[in-house]
Amino acid sequence: MKTIVGFLLLLASGSAFGQSTADTIIARELPSARAYETLSHLTDDIGARLTGSKGAALAVRWTTGQFREWDIPVSNEPVKVPHWVRGREEAHLLSAANQNIVLTAIGGSVATAQSGITADVVEVDSFDELKTLGTAKLRGRIVFYNNPMDMDLVRTHRAFEAYRIAVAFRGAGASRAAEFGAKAIVIRSVGSASLRTPHTGALHYDPKQPKIPAAAMTAEDAMLLHRLLARGKHVRMHMLLTPKTLPDADSANVIAEIRGSEKPEEIVLIGAHLDSWDLATGAIDDGSGVAMVMETMRLLKEMNLRPRRTIRAVLFMNEENGSRGALQYAKDHGKEKHIAAIETDAGGAAPTGFTTTLKGDALAALEARTKPLAAVSSNRFEVAEEAGADIGPLTEAGVPGFGLVPEPLHYFDYHHTNADTLDKVDPKELAQDTAAIAALAWILAE
Amino acid sequence: MKTIVGFLLLLASGSAFGQSTADTIIARELPSARAYETLSHLTDDIGARLTGSKGAALAVRWTTGQFREWDIPVSNEPVKVPHWVRGREEAHLLSAANQNIVLTAIGGSVATAQSGITADVVEVDSFDELKTLGTAKLRGRIVFYNNPMDMDLVRTHRAFEAYRIAVAFRGAGASRAAEFGAKAIVIRSVGSASLRTPHTGALHYDPKQPKIPAAAMTAEDAMLLHRLLARGKHVRMHMLLTPKTLPDADSANVIAEIRGSEKPEEIVLIGAHLDSWDLATGAIDDGSGVAMVMETMRLLKEMNLRPRRTIRAVLFMNEENGSRGALQYAKDHGKEKHIAAIETDAGGAAPTGFTTTLKGDALAALEARTKPLAAVSSNRFEVAEEAGADIGPLTEAGVPGFGLVPEPLHYFDYHHTNADTLDKVDPKELAQDTAAIAALAWILAE
Repeated sequence: MKTIVGFLLLLASGSAFGQSTADTIIARELPSARAYETLSHLTDDIGARLTGSKGAALAVRWTTGQFREWDIPVSNEPVKVPHWVRGREEAHLLSAANQNIVLTAIGGSVATAQSGITADVVEVDSFDELKTLGTAKLRGRIVFYNNPMDMDLVRTHRAFEAYRIAVAFRGAGASRAAEFGAKAIVIRSVGSASLRTPHTGALHYDPKQPKIPAAAMTAEDAMLLHRLLARGKHVRMHMLLTPKTLPDADSANVIAEIRGSEKPEEIVLIGAHLDSWDLATGAIDDGSGVAMVMETMRLLKEMNLRPRRTIRAVLFMNEENGSRGALQYAKDHGKEKHIAAIETDAGGAAPTGFTTTLKGDALAALEARTKPLAAVSSNRFEVAEEAGADIGPLTEAGVPGFGLVPEPLHYFDYHHTNADTLDKVDPKELAQDTAAIAALAWILAE
Repeated sequence: MKTIVGFLLLLASGSAFGQSTADTIIARELPSARAYETLSHLTDDIGARLTGSKGAALAVRWTTGQFREWDIPVSNEPVKVPHWVRGREEAHLLSAANQNIVLTAIGGSVATAQSGITADVVEVDSFDELKTLGTAKLRGRIVFYNNPMDMDLVRTHRAFEAYRIAVAFRGAGASRAAEFGAKAIVIRSVGSASLRTPHTGALHYDPKQPKIPAAAMTAEDAMLLHRLLARGKHVRMHMLLTPKTLPDADSANVIAEIRGSEKPEEIVLIGAHLDSWDLATGAIDDGSGVAMVMETMRLLKEMNLRPRRTIRAVLFMNEENGSRGALQYAKDHGKEKHIAAIETDAGGAAPTGFTTTLKGDALAALEARTKPLAAVSSNRFEVAEEAGADIGPLTEAGVPGFGLVPEPLHYFDYHHTNADTLDKVDPKELAQDTAAIAALAWILAE
C-alpha cells in the first residue's frame, strides 16, 4: 500500500511539476523575438544553404558557435553529402513568338546537351498514361506531367496530403519517362500559388534507366502548354539546363545536448534541417525549424532547467536532396535509447498541433500531460504513419515521433521557391511554435 | 406645341430604343466566350507585344485581319515607336553568402557598364530625402527607393491611387538621383503581391541629367535591403543590366469603324492598347481591353446595329513606354468631332463602373440613360480628372472621357510582371466587361 501510494504521489507531483514548468516555458517564450532573430541571421546574413554550398558550411559553423556561446555542449558529426550546383535554366516554345517558358531544374537533374534539347511535348497526368502511350509516342519527346496540387485539400488543412500526391511526378517522373525513351521531362510545379513561380525539389533516378534532364515549370507555363495541346496545337519546346553534380562534399550534423539529471541515457530528440534549397534563403524550409530548435535549447539552458532525461537538438544536414544527415545520425546513434523524437519541418506559421506515431493508451496518457500546450493551440495530436523525414529512421525503428504542424494553408505557396524568404514568417507565430516545441520536449523529458 | 411634343416623343422613343437595345447587347454578350477566345489568341499564340517587337507587329497584323474577317472597315495608321530591348539583369550583394537579388530593368533604362556596377546602397523613401543627403552622401552610390504601395488603399478599391503615389519613383527616380551623382537606382517594385516578383514599367529621363541605369527589385529583396540597412550593415551591391535602345521602329494604331447612320462625323471612340510589356503576354494589361474593344465591334456588326453616330475602335500602340500611338492619333484626328472616348486599360476582372470626366447635369443626364448597365454592375460613374492614358489628349481637349473600372483588388499583383498571363482572366468576367463597354458605346452613339 505504501509503495503504491508513494508511486502515485510521485507520478502526480512529477506531472504537476512538468505541467507547471511547461506553462512557464510557454509564457517566457511567447513575448520573445529571439527565435526570429536567429532566423534573421540564418536567412538574411548567411542565406541559401544547399548541401555542399558555402552557405551550408557557414550555417554549420554559425549554429555551432551559437550553442557554444550559450554554453550548451555541441558537436559536429561528419556527413558526406551530395553536391549539386544549379546552372542556367532556360526554355521557350518554337512558335510564332517563341514564347518564354519559366522553369527551374529539379534538384539532382543532369544537364541537357550544351546546345539544349528541342523536342515535341507530350502531356500526361499519370504514370499509367505513359504505358498507354508507350515508346512509340514517347521516344525522343519531352514528357510533361501536368499534375496540380489538389486545392480542395490545401484549403482544408490537408496541404501535405496534396503535396504527397502531386510530388510523385517530381521524384520518379524522369526515370519513369526514360523507360519509354523520353528525352527529358517537365512537371507542373508542386505549389499552391504562383506568380510565374517555379518550385524546385529533389528527384530520384532509377539506376536501371538512363538519366534524363528534369525541370519544373511554373503553374502559368503548365497551363499554357495544356491549353495549346488541348487546342490540338503541335507544341515543340527548347530547353537548356546546365546543372552539375560535383564530388560528394564534407559536411556535418550539428548536435547539442542538455544532459538529463536522472536518466541521461534516455533521449528526447528535437530536430530540424539546416540545409535549404538554393533558390532562396529557406526561411520556412527549414530555417524556422532550426530557429525553434536552437531557441528551445537556449531557453531551457537560460531558465536553468535540468530535465530528467536528455534533450538533444539535432540540426540535420541534407534533408532536401539525400537525407544523408538523417541516415548518418541513425547509423551512429540508432542504438541509443530515444524516448521520443520531435521534428519541425513544416514552416513557421501559427502552430495547430502535432502529428504523432504514438497511438492508443500511450497517446491518451500523453494528451493528459500536454494540456499546457493549449496555450499555443498545440494540444491536438493527429496520428500519422510518419512524423518527419529526418526522424524517419528512428520512428521506423519504433521511437515515438512528433511533427509540429504550423498552419499549412500557405506553406506550399513558397515551398522550394525563390520566395521562401524571412518576410514570410511572423515573429509572434514563430515564438508560438518555439513555445510548443520547448514545452512538448520538456514534458517528454520529464 | 406640336414641335415640343414631337421633340419629347423623339427623345423618349430614342431613349427607350437605346435602352432596350443596350439590354439586348448585354444579354447577347454575357454568355459568350468570344472576347476570351480573342484574348487567348493574342496572349497564348502571339505572346508579349512590347513596342518594336515581333509580337507587337504580329498583333497589328492579326487584329487588323480579324476586323476584316468580320467585315468591319479597318486601317493601320503609322506610328514611329521606341524600340527598347531587355538584356541580362543580375544582381547580388557583396556579403558572406553573396545573396542573390532579383530585379528587372525598368523600361527605357540604359545599360550598366559591361562589367556591371558595384556600389554602396543608400535607402531613401522620398525625393526630399535626396536633398537632405545631398551629393556628399549620394555620389557614386546606388540609390534605393523603398516605397511600397499603400495596401490600405489597395484593399479599399483605390489601388490605382496607391499606384500613382508609388510609381513616381519608378518614373522620375533615376534622374532625380542622378542630379546628386548617384551611379544607379533600384526601386521597390510597384505591386500589391509578390512571390519574389519584379514589376517593370517605364521611366522618363530628364534630358538635363546624366542617364543612369534603373531597376525594380522584388518586394522581398527590398525588404531584405531595408532590414540589413536598418541593422546598421554596410550594404554593397553588384548589378548588371544590358538593355539596348535601338532606332525607332515602324508600327501602327489599328482603327476600325462602324459608321453612324445619321451623324457619321460624330465619333464615339472605344480604345485599348495593343502593346504590352515584354515580361509576359499582357493578358490584363491590356490584352483584356483589346479583346473587349474588338468583341464590341464584332457584336454590334453581327447584330446589324447601326448607331446614329460613328463608333470607332482604336487599338493604340505604345501606351507602355511612350504613348506615341495616343499622340499620333490626337495629331491626326484631334480636330474631328469626338462625342465621347471610352478607354479600357485596367484589367479584365468583373466590372464595377466607369470613371468619367463628365460632371454635373451632363453626367446626371447620362446616368438616366445608362440604367441597363446595372445588369453588369457598371452603372456607377465616378468623376475623375482623367479616364485613361491613351484618350488623355482628347479628354484634355474637352472630350468627355470614360474609363472602365474592373475590380482593381488584384490588378497590381500581376501588373507589369511575368505573371500577367491568360490564367489571370475569367472568361465570364471578361464578357461582363465587354457587355459594359458595348452597351455604353451604344448608348453614347445613340
